[in-house]
Amino acid sequence: MSDFEHGPFSRKLSAFITLSEAESAVLASLHQRRRKIAAGRDVFQQGQLGQAAYVLSAGWACSYKILQDGERQVVDFQVPGDFLGLRSVLLHVSDHSVVSVTDIEVSEVLLSDLLGVFERTPRLAAAVLWAASRDEAMVVEHLAGIGRRNAVERMAHFLLELGARLSLVGMGSRAGFDCPLTQYLLADALGLTAVHVNRVLRQLREEGLVAVKDGYVAFEDYERLTEFAGFDPAYLDQPGPLLK
Amino acid sequence: MSDFEHGPFSRKLSAFITLSEAESAVLASLHQRRRKIAAGRDVFQQGQLGQAAYVLSAGWACSYKILQDGERQVVDFQVPGDFLGLRSVLLHVSDHSVVSVTDIEVSEVLLSDLLGVFERTPRLAAAVLWAASRDEAMVVEHLAGIGRRNAVERMAHFLLELGARLSLVGMGSRAGFDCPLTQYLLADALGLTAVHVNRVLRQLREEGLVAVKDGYVAFEDYERLTEFAGFDPAYLDQPGPLLK
Repeated sequence: MSDFEHGPFSRKLSAFITLSEAESAVLASLHQRRRKIAAGRDVFQQGQLGQAAYVLSAGWACSYKILQDGERQVVDFQVPGDFLGLRSVLLHVSDHSVVSVTDIEVSEVLLSDLLGVFERTPRLAAAVLWAASRDEAMVVEHLAGIGRRNAVERMAHFLLELGARLSLVGMGSRAGFDCPLTQYLLADALGLTAVHVNRVLRQLREEGLVAVKDGYVAFEDYERLTEFAGFDPAYLDQPGPLLK
Repeated sequence: MSDFEHGPFSRKLSAFITLSEAESAVLASLHQRRRKIAAGRDVFQQGQLGQAAYVLSAGWACSYKILQDGERQVVDFQVPGDFLGLRSVLLHVSDHSVVSVTDIEVSEVLLSDLLGVFERTPRLAAAVLWAASRDEAMVVEHLAGIGRRNAVERMAHFLLELGARLSLVGMGSRAGFDCPLTQYLLADALGLTAVHVNRVLRQLREEGLVAVKDGYVAFEDYERLTEFAGFDPAYLDQPGPLLK
């Protein structure tokens, strides 16, 4: 189980809680039912009943909603260490769909698994609540972005957020990160058209802030980009664990 | 404590969990530090460190974000039974502000209070996670609304959501609900101008769907409004508690 003790899920939760050996072992027990899913498959769909959640251990996923008229709104992307559909386990009916963006590896987590974890180590209940709060804070940022940021600031903020999330699990830095997202996915996340995404990315590159090319996001001037986007990563990481 | 055992917080959580007497007593213990706050006051502000959360037992509140350029995006409104700033307790730095819309009554909840609850009754940890998931599902709906619904559908969906939330705590029905929200607050929640809100409300009234007047929202044709907005209340309530 040692690979999971230092896997992205533990690594991410460690930002909130200093994990004891017993707590790490309990977390590792959530990785018993593992599945590999190829890129482009629905992991679960909006409207499904009694859905399980998943912990993503490798690859990228995308959560989205289909509206009445068939239009899609991307809610967020998930990277290693994130839950897929944690909300769906608790809401009885899943309010969203999740699709694999790349080939992914997941571990299935049932409501009974979560309750078992909470009974054994109540501190982990707080850690899971932290993870859910962090997910919500990201959706709030996306709402504020679509509601109040212009397209260029919105894209800049979004790329910085992804970079900070990936850094936390060792997959990114202030230099940049590998990014499998197409312009269509970015467009559906940011409320733009693919043509508009292309124009916005060109503007950010011409201003020497960030360059997106061949599946890599290169932060060319991290400080200036952060200032431009008004990005404060406090909702994603902490100066040290709140629960020692 | 009996008034809290049947207060809006217990009543709301009862949608998810069949509360035992012991669990009801633990919930009631969260109402020890009570405060009254006048209308129009900041309960806490974005950027505050080590913020407490609150359970709202009377009145309406509003959570919002201030963007870099000073613009405001309303994230959601809170009604009795809701948490204020649950996220802020866990994120170390509060990512949003909360203001009282009316005079309100709240009970302060610290991270240590939550941990105490989780230790005593792990099932309540799942119930709090459910409440957080429901809050997140609402923000997701608001994101989908601003991203993909037109202004009239967006308003219709929003009013139906508020009605369903208030019904769960005995403050609304399919006939309608008392609503203290101004057109300015509605505008900042829905990404519209106050003038646009006025036009949208007139359109909904002229179509015989919903009438907003003198602080009351009257659903004039609940079924047709629900169909028009594509509203499915599954994310707000459940056919019965998931945890018996």
